[in-house]
Amino acid sequence: MEKKTEFFLSGIAMPEWLAEKWSTFASMTLSAPEERVRWTIALAAENVRRKTGGPFAAAVFERGSNRLVSAAVNVVVPSGQSLAHAEMLAIAAAQEAEKTFDLSHCELVSSCEPCVMCFGGTLWSKVTSLVYGAPGEFARQAGFDEGDKVPDWQRALENRGIKVRGPLEEEAAREPFELYRSLGGMIY
Amino acid sequence: MEKKTEFFLSGIAMPEWLAEKWSTFASMTLSAPEERVRWTIALAAENVRRKTGGPFAAAVFERGSNRLVSAAVNVVVPSGQSLAHAEMLAIAAAQEAEKTFDLSHCELVSSCEPCVMCFGGTLWSKVTSLVYGAPGEFARQAGFDEGDKVPDWQRALENRGIKVRGPLEEEAAREPFELYRSLGGMIY
Repeated sequence: MEKKTEFFLSGIAMPEWLAEKWSTFASMTLSAPEERVRWTIALAAENVRRKTGGPFAAAVFERGSNRLVSAAVNVVVPSGQSLAHAEMLAIAAAQEAEKTFDLSHCELVSSCEPCVMCFGGTLWSKVTSLVYGAPGEFARQAGFDEGDKVPDWQRALENRGIKVRGPLEEEAAREPFELYRSLGGMIY
Repeated sequence: MEKKTEFFLSGIAMPEWLAEKWSTFASMTLSAPEERVRWTIALAAENVRRKTGGPFAAAVFERGSNRLVSAAVNVVVPSGQSLAHAEMLAIAAAQEAEKTFDLSHCELVSSCEPCVMCFGGTLWSKVTSLVYGAPGEFARQAGFDEGDKVPDWQRALENRGIKVRGPLEEEAAREPFELYRSLGGMIY
């Protein structure tokens, strides 16, 4: 492959508060899937409270060790980029950290059921586990759109060797959406 | 929204040859959809010949004026990023150029039918037209995977106000895949 020298797409920033906290998060381990989901839900809620993006967060953990590899929040509005969903950015940041697009040793954890773009992004990342909090219904009720997914999307992932667990921690997973509505957040 | 200061995801580079040509492409107009598709097919073929990524390219044009807004090629392998499909990067570059995530004044042109991730990316970009060259079958025959899309994916886009035209220029659209196979390219 030729060396790349010119950037057409510049970087997408995480909010300052998340960047500042990153040093305390890095290489943290959370052993139970429910704990990992609750942690992303808390990030999603914080993203809303600080008005730095939409009510979604995601993280990538190494399987086995349960070490945190990356974390991201939805920054569609502040970045002006429609791909800036939490799952896409958590995957991208993990691939950057791991220096490979093959995350087969990893799990994607999301505060909410992935939309159709992030469903595809999950496939191509090669993660072998997906854990999520809120069912898509919670996002729809808050005015967000998941897009047209195959109705048996969980089975489609399982058929490709991706273990799926969710919805989990549903009560906690409602909070980011309720906060978003109460603060009158912009639906993109 | 708070000011963003820290980058977790650094930029994704286009190959040097495309960056060098960009000044001659910028604001070019191509009035027929077949011309626009052939142009992206030629970029896809060049990406293969130069060994700078996969056999896919995409571009965003302004509707009405048919002015080129952005162009991108697949750089999954050189960037180490599984989201680095041509359509995702063409959309991202167009949103950066237009300084908004709302591309409702634009058309996405792709050398090939979009995969499930790029189908979702197309939805969220708000483009109102999609034109593509190769049917997904050509990509599958070359060993690429589109992922699990709803079977009536074209209608799903039309139902959301996105006009879809394709497959177009099928004979030309075979070339990038044939080149890729003949050069023994890496299927990611």
